[in-house]
Amino acid sequence: MRIHLVNPNTTVSMTDKIAAAARAVARPGSEILARTSAMGPASIEGYYDDALALPGLLAAIAEAESDGVDGHVIACFDDTGLEAARTLARGPVVGIGEAGFHFASLIAHRFAVVTTLSRSIPVIEANLVRYGLDRRCCAVRASEVAVLELEDAASGARGRISAEIARSVAKDGAEAVVLGCAGMADLARALTEEHGVPVIDGVASAVTLVEALVSTGLVTSKHGAYAAPRPKAYTGLLKDFAPRES
Amino acid sequence: MRIHLVNPNTTVSMTDKIAAAARAVARPGSEILARTSAMGPASIEGYYDDALALPGLLAAIAEAESDGVDGHVIACFDDTGLEAARTLARGPVVGIGEAGFHFASLIAHRFAVVTTLSRSIPVIEANLVRYGLDRRCCAVRASEVAVLELEDAASGARGRISAEIARSVAKDGAEAVVLGCAGMADLARALTEEHGVPVIDGVASAVTLVEALVSTGLVTSKHGAYAAPRPKAYTGLLKDFAPRES
Amino acid sequence: MRIHLVNPNTTVSMTDKIAAAARAVARPGSEILARTSAMGPASIEGYYDDALALPGLLAAIAEAESDGVDGHVIACFDDTGLEAARTLARGPVVGIGEAGFHFASLIAHRFAVVTTLSRSIPVIEANLVRYGLDRRCCAVRASEVAVLELEDAASGARGRISAEIARSVAKDGAEAVVLGCAGMADLARALTEEHGVPVIDGVASAVTLVEALVSTGLVTSKHGAYAAPRPKAYTGLLKDFAPRES
Amino acid sequence: MRIHLVNPNTTVSMTDKIAAAARAVARPGSEILARTSAMGPASIEGYYDDALALPGLLAAIAEAESDGVDGHVIACFDDTGLEAARTLARGPVVGIGEAGFHFASLIAHRFAVVTTLSRSIPVIEANLVRYGLDRRCCAVRASEVAVLELEDAASGARGRISAEIARSVAKDGAEAVVLGCAGMADLARALTEEHGVPVIDGVASAVTLVEALVSTGLVTSKHGAYAAPRPKAYTGLLKDFAPRES
Amino acid sequence: MRIHLVNPNTTVSMTDKIAAAARAVARPGSEILARTSAMGPASIEGYYDDALALPGLLAAIAEAESDGVDGHVIACFDDTGLEAARTLARGPVVGIGEAGFHFASLIAHRFAVVTTLSRSIPVIEANLVRYGLDRRCCAVRASEVAVLELEDAASGARGRISAEIARSVAKDGAEAVVLGCAGMADLARALTEEHGVPVIDGVASAVTLVEALVSTGLVTSKHGAYAAPRPKAYTGLLKDFAPRES
Amino acid sequence: MRIHLVNPNTTVSMTDKIAAAARAVARPGSEILARTSAMGPASIEGYYDDALALPGLLAAIAEAESDGVDGHVIACFDDTGLEAARTLARGPVVGIGEAGFHFASLIAHRFAVVTTLSRSIPVIEANLVRYGLDRRCCAVRASEVAVLELEDAASGARGRISAEIARSVAKDGAEAVVLGCAGMADLARALTEEHGVPVIDGVASAVTLVEALVSTGLVTSKHGAYAAPRPKAYTGLLKDFAPRES
Repeated sequence: MRIHLVNPNTTVSMTDKIAAAARAVARPGSEILARTSAMGPASIEGYYDDALALPGLLAAIAEAESDGVDGHVIACFDDTGLEAARTLARGPVVGIGEAGFHFASLIAHRFAVVTTLSRSIPVIEANLVRYGLDRRCCAVRASEVAVLELEDAASGARGRISAEIARSVAKDGAEAVVLGCAGMADLARALTEEHGVPVIDGVASAVTLVEALVSTGLVTSKHGAYAAPRPKAYTGLLKDFAPRES
Repeated sequence: MRIHLVNPNTTVSMTDKIAAAARAVARPGSEILARTSAMGPASIEGYYDDALALPGLLAAIAEAESDGVDGHVIACFDDTGLEAARTLARGPVVGIGEAGFHFASLIAHRFAVVTTLSRSIPVIEANLVRYGLDRRCCAVRASEVAVLELEDAASGARGRISAEIARSVAKDGAEAVVLGCAGMADLARALTEEHGVPVIDGVASAVTLVEALVSTGLVTSKHGAYAAPRPKAYTGLLKDFAPRES
Repeated sequence: MRIHLVNPNTTVSMTDKIAAAARAVARPGSEILARTSAMGPASIEGYYDDALALPGLLAAIAEAESDGVDGHVIACFDDTGLEAARTLARGPVVGIGEAGFHFASLIAHRFAVVTTLSRSIPVIEANLVRYGLDRRCCAVRASEVAVLELEDAASGARGRISAEIARSVAKDGAEAVVLGCAGMADLARALTEEHGVPVIDGVASAVTLVEALVSTGLVTSKHGAYAAPRPKAYTGLLKDFAPRES
Repeated sequence: MRIHLVNPNTTVSMTDKIAAAARAVARPGSEILARTSAMGPASIEGYYDDALALPGLLAAIAEAESDGVDGHVIACFDDTGLEAARTLARGPVVGIGEAGFHFASLIAHRFAVVTTLSRSIPVIEANLVRYGLDRRCCAVRASEVAVLELEDAASGARGRISAEIARSVAKDGAEAVVLGCAGMADLARALTEEHGVPVIDGVASAVTLVEALVSTGLVTSKHGAYAAPRPKAYTGLLKDFAPRES
Repeated sequence: MRIHLVNPNTTVSMTDKIAAAARAVARPGSEILARTSAMGPASIEGYYDDALALPGLLAAIAEAESDGVDGHVIACFDDTGLEAARTLARGPVVGIGEAGFHFASLIAHRFAVVTTLSRSIPVIEANLVRYGLDRRCCAVRASEVAVLELEDAASGARGRISAEIARSVAKDGAEAVVLGCAGMADLARALTEEHGVPVIDGVASAVTLVEALVSTGLVTSKHGAYAAPRPKAYTGLLKDFAPRES
Repeated sequence: MRIHLVNPNTTVSMTDKIAAAARAVARPGSEILARTSAMGPASIEGYYDDALALPGLLAAIAEAESDGVDGHVIACFDDTGLEAARTLARGPVVGIGEAGFHFASLIAHRFAVVTTLSRSIPVIEANLVRYGLDRRCCAVRASEVAVLELEDAASGARGRISAEIARSVAKDGAEAVVLGCAGMADLARALTEEHGVPVIDGVASAVTLVEALVSTGLVTSKHGAYAAPRPKAYTGLLKDFAPRES
């Protein structure tokens, strides 16, 4: 099975960390094709970065499709471009945010999310409402760690994240905690041991979820929301993105 | 008052129609600065087009901001890029979809939406949930009219739209109907008379709503979700979109 | 354009303040016809006052209708009698509570309400649920300022209101705050500057919202919930309120 | 136990029918004090009638309170004035609409409501949302029978109501049906037999529900929403309604 | 009227306390048939105990049905086995949890629940969502009192429960409080006086609610969810539970 | 990896079919330990069967736990005993109903469920609400096929199921369909081809979902809802189910 893992920001060191997390849980027979977005923001922090990450993300999805992959993982916790990516893909597409939420709801009655900056809270809350899983989430907390601080061991990021996990267990009644950024993938195991509740990494969740969907033969429905884009003219900087007759 | 009206698709004839609808309702003292997106899809039909319309839309918003406009209208019924645009804008930003929903909820207990293709239904439904106004919407119906057919008088588009309005009043209990595409702006008045219930055009709604917000001195909150983008590097095709220190 | 602004309580000094707030934002061509209710409570604080304010409110709406106004603003934050007023009106009717909520949801992801007495919280919460906008409201807080204290500069009311705004920003994550009483209309601008987030006055919001609706030619739907009252006998003290054949 | 049953419209024949339904189910020791509103509409059909029924209703509640009753039933399916009445009452106050909904949700998974005119549907739907019981209601249907037609045996009202019950069982999956008007109280038993599902009369439900609450010693909470009205001046036609110091 | 009151745990002293609470509020003509489950857990604390309490509960319901009772009360706050019991019963079946929630929503705008151990919170929250009454509940709090501590006067249980009631009034805005365990039935009256808000016992609520339903002639709907079990083979330890042709 | 697959009804032929479906999708290294419940109903159709299936189910879970399995699948579409099972399990426990819902929501915007008898609809609807996924489900339809008819090739069951799938696509706007019974596991692939939309089998979904959770190292949270049962006495027929000190 060939799984395309796309980091929709352009920071290669982050792709490497994410790919390592993915390969650590992937099945023996799975090949992880990791790709860094070729254009757009170096990190995704809020709505503007989200929007400008889309062309790079969708170019990567399209390229991987022509390589014939079996499924895709979008490795940004905002689930950037999830629905648009599904219109391009034959196989399943899973975002690491939704994967974390689904997994949390299967092993705990109530879960919390600990993310980076507070400006990401509205994005995550809106996603939870869209998926319906807001009913199971007791809090979305920000550690006020910037995404690229996670790449810097000296930033003290881990301590601030750990403190928010402790608060969500003590004050919000969280039974499990989802880490709200792809760049936190390497912290899940140690934080689980530290806090005595499952701490969930969305990257591992999404990779194994795509493997699961592919194993059962499920593909993205092409009836309705995720039908292939209609062929039409695109102009200017983005003219090469125009959908063609298939 | 100077209001920026951006058509996030690249079809100039559609911008002209939208601008005419806007000017027909704008206050004497309001100047409507209509702009067609400089890049991306010729029409927006579904999630993929929505995603690729964002860079052109945000470039237009940024340009209008440096021109010192007082507010913005996003003239696509999907409210494409609404939140991202708000992070760039000082004044208010209103989408024609949300404007239509808010207006409908002020003059009717239950309203329906009649849009173009059925692939747009999920986008509209998700927006209604996000705004909370799904509780007031009794149906989202598709006329299966493609966006650019609206530019072609011989397409029979008007008849198909009218038929769905009739169904929404008779079967869904709609007390008012929102037209679900910027390209339908010229039809609202005649359809209102034909059906005896208010038929609402989002363009007129959004223009007057921005005028209203500006008159009261309200601007977009910069505390939280819509804070200005953080300065950072962008690369590749989109490198010029990088947010700078303000 | 002629807009009827009705203060559903009987305190004339409050009508004067509200009318001044309305005129400060109204368009040059708009005439604000301010009216104080001719019967009922001197201030509206909770469900009982709300109920007894209705006959005076509806008499005012009916009178203004025969004067041929274009729209109505109900200047009580509880949106007292909103739906009943709509059954009498040809043009749009907007309550200052709903106007404040709608405006807040257009310029902020999450907003709070700061009102007078805690007994008004349930009324406001129930309205938010009815409109669907509870999903965007993070808190309804009471300052424990009685309505008529707002008419008394020596009451310290402003300080208590400001303190609750500070709490809603710091603790509830509010990105904007709606002032929950018509009598606070004169405080919005100064509190906005003090707190650095938009502080919204419902009176200004409702006046400009009615102007917007009227500009687009929209009227209240007479199909369904807001159909004209059926002619029938009324008896006793209220016999003159009986609806007649139109 | 003394239970005050107030018909908030002014039609005495309807009060008689309601009182008979109440006495048919009341406990041996319960005294039903039936009262017809002394002012306002002859029947309640939509928001305007609802609003003008309030003074008469509240006068009746106040009078019964000074007579020392143990609880109140508001015999209009719109639950007209429910919250305002609770601010006046020491004991419990139950509306026949809410009583019917609560009872239906205890004996069936999903229930429907069959009411009089379609203009009452929004009132009932809004109440269901307010109580939370919309989640259990599969449909609110109108029989297009006017309230006073129920007082006229030759009107064919029963047949039209029965037809809507049949549709709600066959099409909506209703397992029980609530009759949506006090004037239908005499039909419940025969319609239950005819349709083979429980058909629920709100009057009987509310009377026995008040008896139940009183038996357990529960009274209306005076902490918060239903605190006694604050003493203040009322003017004009309604000056006698002014709350006094207690 | 004969009402079957079943304690689904096997602790007889608890049944005695519950039966006393039931008899204290029952009508003169009502006979309370109290039964202790003949098999399963000594107390019900969380999902596992809930599951294993079901056979004993359903055996008791079946036995009471053949005795010809008019209705049933399930005296566990988790409303253990409520829907399954309804498939066996002709008359109404009411759980003490739902009874407490319904009663609270009739005398207060917002209520809290104070229960035993925190592991019961998810069960109660899920029930509130299922009934729709979560919209009226402002908090579910655990006193961390084990069920059988309530049988021991020296345990200090009452003090811990009282402290949580005080918190729910002061912090959560509760206007009434529901006691979240059958074993707290004897505390309601004194705690009401202590805190000045209604403190509600589910046992008294459920008994009088069943009396109310029976008085109006309502029975459990046999159309849909609560149809009688289909006859089929059961094997092993539970073979005697097999439903037979009726 | 060792996965325990429990059929909570006692029909061995059904277990065989389910185990085959499970093994067809399981990873090479996974061992499927299929178990038929040793006590209770031959098929699960509605609330009563659900309740009596619990002891057999929980006995199977406990036994598998002492065998040291890595995770469990509950092969009944009602997700019978899901939460109780989680209190016994160290590893993850997934029901086939929830697995089907989660998978459907990842490959389609809106999905429908086609189940056996209409009495199962309320159970499924309540589960969807509990999981939050009701927001994504457009219809739950019954084929009126009894569970054991699925074991009989001559019953015409397949045709009736196929007809409901066709209706859900044409009328409800379903983009994918979840088969609502473990006994339909062998039909998914052919029905997918027949209808051109993904038709989802919960057994395959649940098996691969448990594999995914186990691969990532996630276990059931023991903080809160799913803490191990408290040791206590159980009596009568079920005395051996008493939880012991661990």
